[in-house]
Amino acid sequence: MEYRKIKGEDEDRGSGVDDVESLRGKSLSLQGTMLDNNLVTIGENKIDRTKWKRKSVVTLALTVLTSSQAILIVWSKRAGKYEYSVTTANFLVETLKCAISLAVLGRIWRTEGVTEDNRLTTTLDEVIVYPIPAALYLVKNLLQYYIFAYVDAPGYQILKNLNIISTGVLYRIILKKRLSEIQWAAFILLCAGCTTAQLNTNSDRVLQTPFQGWVMATVMALLSGFAGVYTEAIIKKRPSRNINVQNFWLYIFGMAFNAVAILIQDFDAVMNKGFFHGYSLITVLMILNHALSGIAVSMVMKYADNIVKVYSTSVAMLLTAVVSVFLFGFHLSLAFFLGTVVVSVAIYLHSAGKMQR
Amino acid sequence: MEYRKIKGEDEDRGSGVDDVESLRGKSLSLQGTMLDNNLVTIGENKIDRTKWKRKSVVTLALTVLTSSQAILIVWSKRAGKYEYSVTTANFLVETLKCAISLAVLGRIWRTEGVTEDNRLTTTLDEVIVYPIPAALYLVKNLLQYYIFAYVDAPGYQILKNLNIISTGVLYRIILKKRLSEIQWAAFILLCAGCTTAQLNTNSDRVLQTPFQGWVMATVMALLSGFAGVYTEAIIKKRPSRNINVQNFWLYIFGMAFNAVAILIQDFDAVMNKGFFHGYSLITVLMILNHALSGIAVSMVMKYADNIVKVYSTSVAMLLTAVVSVFLFGFHLSLAFFLGTVVVSVAIYLHSAGKMQR
Repeated sequence: MEYRKIKGEDEDRGSGVDDVESLRGKSLSLQGTMLDNNLVTIGENKIDRTKWKRKSVVTLALTVLTSSQAILIVWSKRAGKYEYSVTTANFLVETLKCAISLAVLGRIWRTEGVTEDNRLTTTLDEVIVYPIPAALYLVKNLLQYYIFAYVDAPGYQILKNLNIISTGVLYRIILKKRLSEIQWAAFILLCAGCTTAQLNTNSDRVLQTPFQGWVMATVMALLSGFAGVYTEAIIKKRPSRNINVQNFWLYIFGMAFNAVAILIQDFDAVMNKGFFHGYSLITVLMILNHALSGIAVSMVMKYADNIVKVYSTSVAMLLTAVVSVFLFGFHLSLAFFLGTVVVSVAIYLHSAGKMQR
Repeated sequence: MEYRKIKGEDEDRGSGVDDVESLRGKSLSLQGTMLDNNLVTIGENKIDRTKWKRKSVVTLALTVLTSSQAILIVWSKRAGKYEYSVTTANFLVETLKCAISLAVLGRIWRTEGVTEDNRLTTTLDEVIVYPIPAALYLVKNLLQYYIFAYVDAPGYQILKNLNIISTGVLYRIILKKRLSEIQWAAFILLCAGCTTAQLNTNSDRVLQTPFQGWVMATVMALLSGFAGVYTEAIIKKRPSRNINVQNFWLYIFGMAFNAVAILIQDFDAVMNKGFFHGYSLITVLMILNHALSGIAVSMVMKYADNIVKVYSTSVAMLLTAVVSVFLFGFHLSLAFFLGTVVVSVAIYLHSAGKMQR
């Protein structure tokens, strides 16, 4: 395992090339080549380890937050139906994320001062791309209402696993990053394993989905995958830019598009019953959780990538099921065990596949 | 794909070391080292290609025969219950295999003459091991009657997939052949994929199998795996010995042990109703098919190995289901599709894993 981890770090060095290069530049001005090489190696290892740690922490945070998010949803469903307007909750999630980003930025400004990388004002050229992910998610959420004419809710859960494949394909096409053949095999297994884990006695009904349903599911998977990959492209385009500045711009447009969604879908309810109608403790917890996991997604995009995000959320799905056994007395099926085995092997293969890339 | 195939052939050269070495020895007596190397390479490639073709043909034959065997079983079940004594049928299968081996040997003797490698008489030292696989299968078949006290028939089908794991483990321990990490991952996937493909609404009941049921299923998987690996060890021990001589000895003991089984289980039925009671056209076809697939198994052991056998029979299981859709109007489940995807990826990984062994 240790060997593999170190090999993995070697492979992850790609995005850190700038820093390593600058270190190498400095060391060249010193004397004694052997000593230099050692210094460079130690420097590289330290940077690699820091990066690896940061990547692990954000991935773990995303997994735990996504899993607890699903558990909160199960909990709220058991407590009764959604009585609040989902659009107002989404708007509050974006607002909270925006506020957190600004608060962190404020602290950074006080300790490090305002620099080129952490100032909020940027060129129109840079900001112009930030509304796109929020717009894509809005379209996807609107489509979601129509797909239920063709598929039932459990079927939709199954079809949502198409997101895994669409993310992998768009990651390759748009970000032009390569996955090894073994990693592609792992990705197909991840999709098959997640779907297997979710199988139940009614799952076969999804095979009767009419053609329009498949088209809509595919379009939704592509929209969702595209939004994720596009967000990564925006965030990675300027690696030195502080993530909180990037988040601020993402979330401010998120607020704007969710305000539009309130007007389209819940204007009457908000006008008649008030903005916070039907809110409970669990709603507040869900908003808090969504905001934190949203920030974790951004962090994963910055310090890891969409592939790691997909693995992380898949593991969260399995984790949710296991936790639900203890919390809600759920039973685990044989299909769940088999799906978990396949997902575990996929994770192993994803990391083993790095070596031969 | 072409690249992978050639790489695969490189790896398969292990068992052909003798031939390649003797070629190399001859070429050393020639003059001109560059020319020699070319000759050796061409010679190696030709031998590799012949081996690869032979391996492919026997594997394909085993897949098709195993699949049609399963289809005959479904057909005979739909036609009505088994009315014949299974032990007499098994005895006839062994007899037929023995007769076919002798007939082929007779032809070889006429064309090539009797040599050290194709003569039937051998030392006791060599023959002494041949009864063991037949004895193991007899014990396993007797145990089969008792496991149904703990597991129902569909549950037993699921548990039989433990054979895949036991074969892999015993193959490693007894034959001391190595599988790469990727190939182990592929083997776990093969087991998970086959089980997934067989899932149905009652499969979860297998999770309620009592401890004794699990123990018996494990013992049976170990017996079956051991018998397979042991057969491979016997056959591979003397690579130059003609396969039909080896088969003759395997099957003659198979006849003997199945005669014992008739005495234990069906003595009364045979005495009262006759040896061939309840035989029909389909019974004859099943006996013919079992005999040919038994010979195909031996061939796979000789020219490939137990791992190839397991992959071959797994693919046969999937093939059977697909053919049954057309023949019997079966419906394929979502679980079947997912299992097929996982098995397909496992096959790819098994071949891709060769490269890094």
